[in-house]
Amino acid sequence: MSASVHRLYPGEPAQAPTLTPMLSLTADGMGGVNQIILDRMQSKIPLIPALAGHLIAGGGKRMRPMLTLASAALLEYEGVRHHKLAAAVEFIHTATLLHDDVVDRSDMRRGKQAANVVFGNPAAVLVGDFLFSRSFELMVEDGSLKVLKILSSASAIIAEGEVDQLTAQRQVETGEERYLHIVGAKTAALFAAACRIAAVVAERDPKVEQALDDYGRNLGIAFQLADDAIDYDSEVGESGKDKGDDFRDGKMTLPVILAYARGNEAERSFWQEAIRGRSVDDDDLAHAIALIARHDAVRDTRERARHFANRAIDAISGFPVNAARDAMIEAVQFAVSRRF
Amino acid sequence: MSASVHRLYPGEPAQAPTLTPMLSLTADGMGGVNQIILDRMQSKIPLIPALAGHLIAGGGKRMRPMLTLASAALLEYEGVRHHKLAAAVEFIHTATLLHDDVVDRSDMRRGKQAANVVFGNPAAVLVGDFLFSRSFELMVEDGSLKVLKILSSASAIIAEGEVDQLTAQRQVETGEERYLHIVGAKTAALFAAACRIAAVVAERDPKVEQALDDYGRNLGIAFQLADDAIDYDSEVGESGKDKGDDFRDGKMTLPVILAYARGNEAERSFWQEAIRGRSVDDDDLAHAIALIARHDAVRDTRERARHFANRAIDAISGFPVNAARDAMIEAVQFAVSRRF
Repeated sequence: MSASVHRLYPGEPAQAPTLTPMLSLTADGMGGVNQIILDRMQSKIPLIPALAGHLIAGGGKRMRPMLTLASAALLEYEGVRHHKLAAAVEFIHTATLLHDDVVDRSDMRRGKQAANVVFGNPAAVLVGDFLFSRSFELMVEDGSLKVLKILSSASAIIAEGEVDQLTAQRQVETGEERYLHIVGAKTAALFAAACRIAAVVAERDPKVEQALDDYGRNLGIAFQLADDAIDYDSEVGESGKDKGDDFRDGKMTLPVILAYARGNEAERSFWQEAIRGRSVDDDDLAHAIALIARHDAVRDTRERARHFANRAIDAISGFPVNAARDAMIEAVQFAVSRRF
Repeated sequence: MSASVHRLYPGEPAQAPTLTPMLSLTADGMGGVNQIILDRMQSKIPLIPALAGHLIAGGGKRMRPMLTLASAALLEYEGVRHHKLAAAVEFIHTATLLHDDVVDRSDMRRGKQAANVVFGNPAAVLVGDFLFSRSFELMVEDGSLKVLKILSSASAIIAEGEVDQLTAQRQVETGEERYLHIVGAKTAALFAAACRIAAVVAERDPKVEQALDDYGRNLGIAFQLADDAIDYDSEVGESGKDKGDDFRDGKMTLPVILAYARGNEAERSFWQEAIRGRSVDDDDLAHAIALIARHDAVRDTRERARHFANRAIDAISGFPVNAARDAMIEAVQFAVSRRF
């Protein structure tokens, strides 16, 4: 199967891509990764596994560790070193989610009550710190300074992106370029690192590292933009997060950025007031969704997502065809076609 | 000057120990460390240096990086590798303070408004994460896996200790043993690591590493107990933190633990209600201080602190006499004699 079959240009017949090939490809390895995750979230302090388990056992696709495993499979790496590192990546992600929920005062996560609601903000902050420390312990056990460099740098970039997003919150003038920069940091940096470390473990050259980094980074951006689209898509039902959360939090995501840029004066006034912190109700959310539909902002957010998805696919198109490459390509297609 | 001169048994005439020898010993090195701290807290996101600078420029004794430098001087290490690592230690500490203030809902820190009050809890959480990541970047740049192991392990232990303390909060039955365990984790682990890494950088044998670890750990416990005593000492004025904060937060610290264990039924009822969360006022605080005085609980907390101080001093008594050893001994004496 060649990469070109998978291109996502508008008008191409939908193939209903799924995550199934990726799940099959990584099933065995994820068994090992999940065992490490469960083992290493333990502590003599019972609140730690209780809280971490609430979020970790609570589902989530574990996209990032799966990407480490798929990337290793793409390179036909035969060892198991990357299992520990994939667990470290998931711990960084989990720590970020815990802190995000505190920062956003979220009520729901992955379709159930957020950990900060169940256990309180203080515990969520501190258990996040624990998981973050534990992730570095796992990396140190592996012993690759190169991996440590990639993941410590990604962690700093994620934190910068989160602060940047906080600064942009309720700022209606946030533009598309700045938003893409934020997404590149807060979401895509960890996707990129998760893929890149597989090349380090497999001892492949810098070009291979870079290709996997490019794949992960573009997939991460596509993934986030697809997420943003779902939150304002009038045609989809409830997702795991509370519908309209982004709007109520005054978050400038791409659908809003596009609708605001394309809006008339009255529309801009609405956005200014709503985003700047006027208390908003369900009618406001309905109006926001209508404005976004009028300007095709969900459709175009998805088109932007497909652009990055295509770049992700092209980044690995030079690798020899194998099951891993096919699964990684379909995972990208899945990321931008999903409606949940 | 021999170590025995410095013993701290009760009745020994006070010498008014100061931190001056430690400050002089480490002045040059701390110039380098401070420069690294300032350089590496920078970011393109202006909120990050603004918030980090509020806390970092806000003073604080920088005990932990000073201990790294003093330990290196004790071993007559001549390089500068440890400057970066000392900055990493301070970043871990700063991140912990930022998160602590969010967890405790503190109003004040180091005599001024806490960062979470000025910049908000979300920013304090996220900038803490940034500084924590940055500390690992600094360690990775140094490149010692041994140092990375020591500090990642210390970070996980600190986070566990913080969660443990959270679990113990408002639990009047928290005993002295459990409390010492919490202090060992949340405070002393980083003191121990700060000292131990100097031995790694100086390439000294495991016995030297262990001696410095013991010094730092015991000093850390002594330091924390002395801090706890100050919060209930009827004879001292305002300290940097709000007087009575521990009491209002329902924290079980050693003065309260001793007074509760020694109290009669009426006193225990008072502590139970106050610690378990009844709203407390200034009269309650005055009553608490009176009960603690009645049972000599501040005096005995200081005596416990001196016990650990003596162990710290003994841990380094086998090293050849030099200015660093004298300064490190006097720093211990200072830690347990200070009234602020």
